[in-house]
Amino acid sequence: MRTTSAYGAQGSEEELTLRTVERRDLRPDDVAVRVTYCGVCYTDVSSLHAHEGDGLLVPGHEFVGEVVGVGDAVTRFVVGDQVAVGNIVDSCGTCAMCRAGQENFCEEFPTLTYGGRDRHDGSTTLGGYSGEYVAREDFVYHRPTNLDPAAVAPLLCAGVTVWEPLRRWAAGPGMTVGVAGLGGLGHLAVRLAAALGARVVVLTRTPGKADDARALGADDVVVTTDDADLARAAGTIDLLLDTISARHDLGQLLRLVALDGTLVSLGWLGPVELETLDLLIGRKSLASAGSGGRPRTQELLDFCGERGITADVEVLPSAQVSTALRRLAANDVRYRFVLDLSDLPAA
Amino acid sequence: MRTTSAYGAQGSEEELTLRTVERRDLRPDDVAVRVTYCGVCYTDVSSLHAHEGDGLLVPGHEFVGEVVGVGDAVTRFVVGDQVAVGNIVDSCGTCAMCRAGQENFCEEFPTLTYGGRDRHDGSTTLGGYSGEYVAREDFVYHRPTNLDPAAVAPLLCAGVTVWEPLRRWAAGPGMTVGVAGLGGLGHLAVRLAAALGARVVVLTRTPGKADDARALGADDVVVTTDDADLARAAGTIDLLLDTISARHDLGQLLRLVALDGTLVSLGWLGPVELETLDLLIGRKSLASAGSGGRPRTQELLDFCGERGITADVEVLPSAQVSTALRRLAANDVRYRFVLDLSDLPAA
Repeated sequence: MRTTSAYGAQGSEEELTLRTVERRDLRPDDVAVRVTYCGVCYTDVSSLHAHEGDGLLVPGHEFVGEVVGVGDAVTRFVVGDQVAVGNIVDSCGTCAMCRAGQENFCEEFPTLTYGGRDRHDGSTTLGGYSGEYVAREDFVYHRPTNLDPAAVAPLLCAGVTVWEPLRRWAAGPGMTVGVAGLGGLGHLAVRLAAALGARVVVLTRTPGKADDARALGADDVVVTTDDADLARAAGTIDLLLDTISARHDLGQLLRLVALDGTLVSLGWLGPVELETLDLLIGRKSLASAGSGGRPRTQELLDFCGERGITADVEVLPSAQVSTALRRLAANDVRYRFVLDLSDLPAA
Repeated sequence: MRTTSAYGAQGSEEELTLRTVERRDLRPDDVAVRVTYCGVCYTDVSSLHAHEGDGLLVPGHEFVGEVVGVGDAVTRFVVGDQVAVGNIVDSCGTCAMCRAGQENFCEEFPTLTYGGRDRHDGSTTLGGYSGEYVAREDFVYHRPTNLDPAAVAPLLCAGVTVWEPLRRWAAGPGMTVGVAGLGGLGHLAVRLAAALGARVVVLTRTPGKADDARALGADDVVVTTDDADLARAAGTIDLLLDTISARHDLGQLLRLVALDGTLVSLGWLGPVELETLDLLIGRKSLASAGSGGRPRTQELLDFCGERGITADVEVLPSAQVSTALRRLAANDVRYRFVLDLSDLPAA
């Protein structure tokens, strides 16, 4: 076994503390990554909150680093490569979803980067708030080296979660893309949709976010607490990416969607009630999506490298992990915290 | 005013009886149609059931006939033309939906063929269970004369309701189209999807319908009360047209939908509860649609003429209208009743 250090907790009441953890010895197709920066995702907050029992939880599923070791059969990486890892690190590889490059929907459930169950030894995966991570090479990505690595890290979860629907629904010139909620996902959705050539409209409850939205690339801002704004925007949005995680009125958003348009809820809302008339009039669709598959993850990293796109991040020393989590839970971040893990001992 | 005869009722408890009704004198852009055959839609049953008060309700919104008069400004029809009329007879003509050729979603609400409110004189429209109908030429369609006219009538509502989503979601070779429910809409969906080149799967609770489904063109039949059948079909249907009007489990149907596929509920289901995980895993969409716009209504009639496609109908003399409604309410029809109105005095 390899050892490294990581921030982990044993239960929901416990603060994250630095401790020594084990990483597996490299299997033939494994890559060892020296983690340097890891984004702080809202999933980290909710996973810690929901964590029960004695098992160790180490969050972190959007990180970048450098290859420090490769297994005998690894062909795509060598030591020194600049890489990135997202929120899944394995999948069955044979189901229809995996064959389609959507390992995130693997019918046998993908192996999550933390809190997952390794498909070979059954161990619980420990995340990227750590000095080192070991993963199958198939789930490690080359990352553009012309970009600030800290600001690349959030592309691996927040970024690909908005990139996949933008690509699935062919965002581009002639299309109006709406983005509801201007947080970690939303700010990247605006930037990427604009880079793809779409007209971008930000929907927000907060009039004060209008300038920020325009600075990110939005062509228009609709304040959803303003009836005149809602009326003006009714039926105009072809693809509406809904990044709002709290319970909210899907009908209000559907009424902004254009003929044959789609409202995509990003992430799991749980059970919702829906007036189907809001779909029928204008033949609209409600979809849901989350995370990304391998092909589009690499595609996103390449696109961002070419176009110079990164997340807006606030980098904190890893020792301030609890501050980051607390402030994120209070929605006090523009737009993503990233932990600097370069000061941790890797092994 | 012109007079004609029609089957109408004054309230929900009343049987339909033959009576004399008025049709407006022809406006410049009006066409008078001698109605010969009118399909019996489930909407007719529910409208009669919901009908209250003293107003006269004459059902019927999918009918064929012959032009017997034209207004001064009519350019597309002459007396003697073989025509058809569907479930809408006017719309605002200027909103985004009308401009897109989806008058069925007119933002000012389209004028329904019966029970609607005429946009000029404010009168209540009386439907096609009648010897004659007067409508704007824009909402009258040329129909193929090589087909049995009685079997063409249901194309105007049931047909276009399934045709629109088949075209919107590009049903064709390489795509699997599912059809849930094998009634008036369902049997036409099977026939049209097969004619478009799609692989067609019928979903039914009734194993005994398998032979009928295959005769209509289905490549496969899934019995939704059979767990093994459901498991076999899970995640395989790209476009699932749901023609079931009773309350049912959308989650069960969504689990049959393939990656990036769509479940389209045809008609208004009212409020539904939905577990969004059924959408998220596989990035599926739930849509709803109903009726059709002018361009695709004519397109459907032309397609059916070229391909020799009609509905399977049971033609009844118009005097048996109550029998048709009663048997339809009991789901005792394969697959559409059509009233023969040629024996009624037109005027």
